[in-house]
Amino acid sequence: MSIWFTEKQTENFGITAKINKIQHSEQTDFQKLDMVETEEWGNMLLLDDMVMTTEKDEFVYHEMVAHVPLFTHPNPKHVLVVGGGDGGVIREVLKHPSVVKATLVEIDGKVIEYSKKYLPTIAGTLEDARVEVKVDDGFLHIAQSEKAYDVIMVDSTEPVGPAVNLFTKGFYSGISKALKDDGIFVAQTDNPWFKADLISQVFSDVKEIFPVTRLYTANIPTYPSGLWTFTLGSKIHDPLKVKEDRFNEMETKYYTKELHFASFALPKFVKDLTE
Amino acid sequence: MSIWFTEKQTENFGITAKINKIQHSEQTDFQKLDMVETEEWGNMLLLDDMVMTTEKDEFVYHEMVAHVPLFTHPNPKHVLVVGGGDGGVIREVLKHPSVVKATLVEIDGKVIEYSKKYLPTIAGTLEDARVEVKVDDGFLHIAQSEKAYDVIMVDSTEPVGPAVNLFTKGFYSGISKALKDDGIFVAQTDNPWFKADLISQVFSDVKEIFPVTRLYTANIPTYPSGLWTFTLGSKIHDPLKVKEDRFNEMETKYYTKELHFASFALPKFVKDLTE
Repeated sequence: MSIWFTEKQTENFGITAKINKIQHSEQTDFQKLDMVETEEWGNMLLLDDMVMTTEKDEFVYHEMVAHVPLFTHPNPKHVLVVGGGDGGVIREVLKHPSVVKATLVEIDGKVIEYSKKYLPTIAGTLEDARVEVKVDDGFLHIAQSEKAYDVIMVDSTEPVGPAVNLFTKGFYSGISKALKDDGIFVAQTDNPWFKADLISQVFSDVKEIFPVTRLYTANIPTYPSGLWTFTLGSKIHDPLKVKEDRFNEMETKYYTKELHFASFALPKFVKDLTE
Repeated sequence: MSIWFTEKQTENFGITAKINKIQHSEQTDFQKLDMVETEEWGNMLLLDDMVMTTEKDEFVYHEMVAHVPLFTHPNPKHVLVVGGGDGGVIREVLKHPSVVKATLVEIDGKVIEYSKKYLPTIAGTLEDARVEVKVDDGFLHIAQSEKAYDVIMVDSTEPVGPAVNLFTKGFYSGISKALKDDGIFVAQTDNPWFKADLISQVFSDVKEIFPVTRLYTANIPTYPSGLWTFTLGSKIHDPLKVKEDRFNEMETKYYTKELHFASFALPKFVKDLTE
């Protein structure tokens, strides 16, 4: 018997993948969680039937969330990851020697638990001494923080279910307050083919709060349309003005310093969403 | 009844799209041709069950095949498109005022016929006075041409079926002979997630023949992995050294002059395929 999983990325379009085994399925307190072993992508984490990450292509998302803001900041020491219970962003954050402490605030402890079990190459570094893991509401954590972080990364699910608050202007204001005076934040902001209005709205909201607001993209084959956007808000430092000597050697599979800059060159129809 | 079409992009992964209507289906002399109306992408052309183009996302592929080499060449007058019977590349080529003549050599007349009927916004400009359409074998046409073209674009299907010859070193040698002394060619060369070996092989073959060999990418949501590569071979002109004043105003939806350069900044794992 051949079993295929299908994610409807829109009402009328989706991806489909052959599954070898369903590793785990449960309704947590927050969402439906499935871990499946696919033939093409290795183990794959799904939340509310949407692909969150896979063993084979996870490096793109995690590298691009982490390294763009971390190389933009001249000396990031305290980093907060909101969401991201699979641990992939934390793994990349820890590659930066300046980082003293990385805090992960994930609302759903089950995501952490099953990522550690089935995605060990992604979640393994959550055990690192520099990492503090809090199972808590990221929105509240942000509201309670003041000038605490150099860089904040919002590694959320889509704006449905538990993450709906994480796409509001109030949240971005809270992030600004939680950041130090030269802080930077980045959030995943979905794809321009099916969610153009969301990107437009978030960009415009962030721009009202942060002096430097920029959109960049990366190719993620298991995400809708394959073209993912990230919105970056910064109080001072501009990702397009990072000096050559800021970059240091780092083992990556997607990010390069050339791509750091190139990822901000947007297709015309995406650029239009920021204007 | 809800009808969905599924393209298996690998043995174990694919895309699936809701279909409103099957416009046309036939086995031509060369391949299986299907034209379907999808809810998400409008009319979609399939050859041998692989998505060739759709009304909604076609602009990406067609703009990126055409404008990168055409702006790299200082004064392209004679352009050849091998394959590309849907007419989308020709439409973009004609946006360049320097172009005196654009020749299309498509092996399968049925592709042209049904593109004109069901993809009029793509195939419409095939009627333009500057266009010559030949229903012929592109491989033979190249073999019979000498110093005839400024720019040659290979808009082929995958290297199975009628296009298998178009991915050989002999073909690239023929292209070199068919080009003028400062000619440029570009070919679509599939995606780095599932066809890494093909990209590596083509890049290495082209590099033995053309002094300037470069790989660039674009996001095409209905193509496997969403990340598509194009291999460019040039006798003299370097796409990375195009001067600011060469670009002129042109209506596009994907291509911009910033993206012209940025599209050559490759993800690390793709860059590795060229080294």
